[in-house]
Amino acid sequence: MITINENYLKLQDSYLFSTIAKKVTKFQEENPDKKVIKLGIGDVTLPIVPIVGKAIKEATEEMLKKETFRGYGPEQGYDFLREKIAINDYQKLGITIQKDEIFVSDGTKCDTGNIGEIFSKDNIIAITDPVYPVYLDTNIMAGRTGDYHPNKKQYEKVVYLETTAENNFIPELPKEKVDMIYLCFPNNPTGTVLNKLELTKWVTYAKQNKAIILFDGAYEAFIEEEGIPHSIYEIEGAKEVAIEFRSFSKTAGFTGLRCAYTIIPKELKAYTQKGKEVNLNQLWSRRQCTKFNGVPYITQRAAQSIYTKEGQKQIQENIQYYKENAKRIRQGLQKAGYTVFGGKNAPYIWLKVPNGYTSWEFFDYLLETANIVGTPGSGFGPSGEGYFRLTAFASKENTIEAMERIQNLK
Amino acid sequence: MITINENYLKLQDSYLFSTIAKKVTKFQEENPDKKVIKLGIGDVTLPIVPIVGKAIKEATEEMLKKETFRGYGPEQGYDFLREKIAINDYQKLGITIQKDEIFVSDGTKCDTGNIGEIFSKDNIIAITDPVYPVYLDTNIMAGRTGDYHPNKKQYEKVVYLETTAENNFIPELPKEKVDMIYLCFPNNPTGTVLNKLELTKWVTYAKQNKAIILFDGAYEAFIEEEGIPHSIYEIEGAKEVAIEFRSFSKTAGFTGLRCAYTIIPKELKAYTQKGKEVNLNQLWSRRQCTKFNGVPYITQRAAQSIYTKEGQKQIQENIQYYKENAKRIRQGLQKAGYTVFGGKNAPYIWLKVPNGYTSWEFFDYLLETANIVGTPGSGFGPSGEGYFRLTAFASKENTIEAMERIQNLK
Repeated sequence: MITINENYLKLQDSYLFSTIAKKVTKFQEENPDKKVIKLGIGDVTLPIVPIVGKAIKEATEEMLKKETFRGYGPEQGYDFLREKIAINDYQKLGITIQKDEIFVSDGTKCDTGNIGEIFSKDNIIAITDPVYPVYLDTNIMAGRTGDYHPNKKQYEKVVYLETTAENNFIPELPKEKVDMIYLCFPNNPTGTVLNKLELTKWVTYAKQNKAIILFDGAYEAFIEEEGIPHSIYEIEGAKEVAIEFRSFSKTAGFTGLRCAYTIIPKELKAYTQKGKEVNLNQLWSRRQCTKFNGVPYITQRAAQSIYTKEGQKQIQENIQYYKENAKRIRQGLQKAGYTVFGGKNAPYIWLKVPNGYTSWEFFDYLLETANIVGTPGSGFGPSGEGYFRLTAFASKENTIEAMERIQNLK
Repeated sequence: MITINENYLKLQDSYLFSTIAKKVTKFQEENPDKKVIKLGIGDVTLPIVPIVGKAIKEATEEMLKKETFRGYGPEQGYDFLREKIAINDYQKLGITIQKDEIFVSDGTKCDTGNIGEIFSKDNIIAITDPVYPVYLDTNIMAGRTGDYHPNKKQYEKVVYLETTAENNFIPELPKEKVDMIYLCFPNNPTGTVLNKLELTKWVTYAKQNKAIILFDGAYEAFIEEEGIPHSIYEIEGAKEVAIEFRSFSKTAGFTGLRCAYTIIPKELKAYTQKGKEVNLNQLWSRRQCTKFNGVPYITQRAAQSIYTKEGQKQIQENIQYYKENAKRIRQGLQKAGYTVFGGKNAPYIWLKVPNGYTSWEFFDYLLETANIVGTPGSGFGPSGEGYFRLTAFASKENTIEAMERIQNLK
């Protein structure tokens, strides 16, 4: 008898953003005259920049000619892109990353989800709370968690690192021993950052406890303040304990094009149950060769194009546009009397919902009264209850209008 | 202490095609003057057809404009593509497939690899022997196999369904009870097919044993004979027991563009350990929403374009081109005295290696003497020993030259 992976039955909800999409669709069907402004999902709205479009079209021309057509590419990515990543995203920070430590993929969501496959089910995971749901959900599916506790709104066997206004959204080191630590900074959903000193504590913890840090740096392009690491490898020794995930989605507007990459340094080791060291770079390479067939050539050429001088100029204009939106939301919410966090080195603004509301109640309230879609903080974990996320990725016009609507609610 | 998934240590070799690529690179470095002809990996060589290039460029134009830009798409694929698939690939065969039974993905390799995630580790798998390595390797990684037996060249807990010249490459139903059956027809690597009667036996077996069939139809476009099912859903009741995988790679030259799809009918059920029915369509949808972010919009528009009248004409010309190569190889090898199989409804030709050679010895012999790359049959499983695979995907000129070289060896 064919049996299912029963870990799936432990999942409490459908994927958060699918749930929101369904609620919004229903609202729009019932209120066809209302203009809904979406500040919910972290999806970009500016078109791809001209140089990216040009690169895709040129690469497509190559694909149309027999002499320059490319079929299956290397599962780990083309060297032309891996070289640009090594130079521009790391060498400029003073970090040496080899080409074959870079794995080009079709998304950080996929990579942070799939990476668990190379690790034992017995590892104890630590996640910040609130957290990007993919880290938790993929570990539930993999059987690395116990059952759900409806009262605590937590899964057994998972170490939740609370980040709230009380601790300035800086997670404390776990008291118990953990093996896999998911860190995302600039943070999704809170929009907060860790400085070098704070991040160093985590690298030290990982070394002392033979743990691994899964560092999601998808939003590093939004960092503007000094002293905030763009890469975990800015911390000495981090290559021995950390995998870093990066994406072109928010940096270069690739949410609809799909390109990201993951760094697995050769120094990075994990262990067999008996304590024998195993090279994770090789393990992940084997995984990718067996279960992945590489990112399209045209997409990799598109990603490469952003590393030119003109490409950098074009994507920086877009990042600046979103940063100004973040500022508008911060200031607009403050003007309306809200307490807000994040939005300075990140495209996410995290606000305290008014007293008397749960996060989901505030979601409904905002949708019904101001026709604005955000994301309930509790959707990101129990410590997100009482908070709400807005994103800076809408158009300038819609962002301004949204803030006007919120101010007029008062 | 961070520990690895030790199932990876059970893997015997690196991924087959990576091993071959390394051998060929070494040979070329040592023999820079030799022109190597590659009939090894099943990668297309004709450029993408004009209508596909046009669709990509038009979709890229949309991505360049704010009004028509598309960010994250539906994880399951855009409706415009799913509708075309339902109509053209199924309705025309008299099969009703709903849009939401179709999951668009970036490759059949990924899908056949990832699908295992929704099933329990305790299921017994059956694979044909020889077999496309991904089915076996991904199950080893998932822990669904026991250890490797060096003598038998088999993994414990796996049911190997031998297909050799002795049984005309038609696998026999297993004597023991199995739960997950991987079938690929037209077959990779043997190039052989199953007729409707033979395939019906498997559907009946699956129903009687509450098993599931994972049917890889990546090569269906090469079927030319009557009575050979293009889809497993041509068999009555198959929707209750089968998942079908299809790809644009070989049908439309998408190996470098990455697009495929998987059908999970709503009738398809699996069970909890306690025997409760679970809907697999929903389970896979949850998996995709959590670990995948959809196929690029431009790629899905490209895939859609092949369903136009002009698109069909263009891709059929390419398929015809490869079919003629297959015929050339069949006839060329026969002329050189080889016993050959496949190559009639498939792009693969399976030949018996000369007496006294192992498959890998013949690989080296052919590379060194004729400078031709093929794939050793033993790389696909122990019953592939003594066989060798050539593919029809090279250029016409190279295929003709390769056959001349082989004939001149005699």
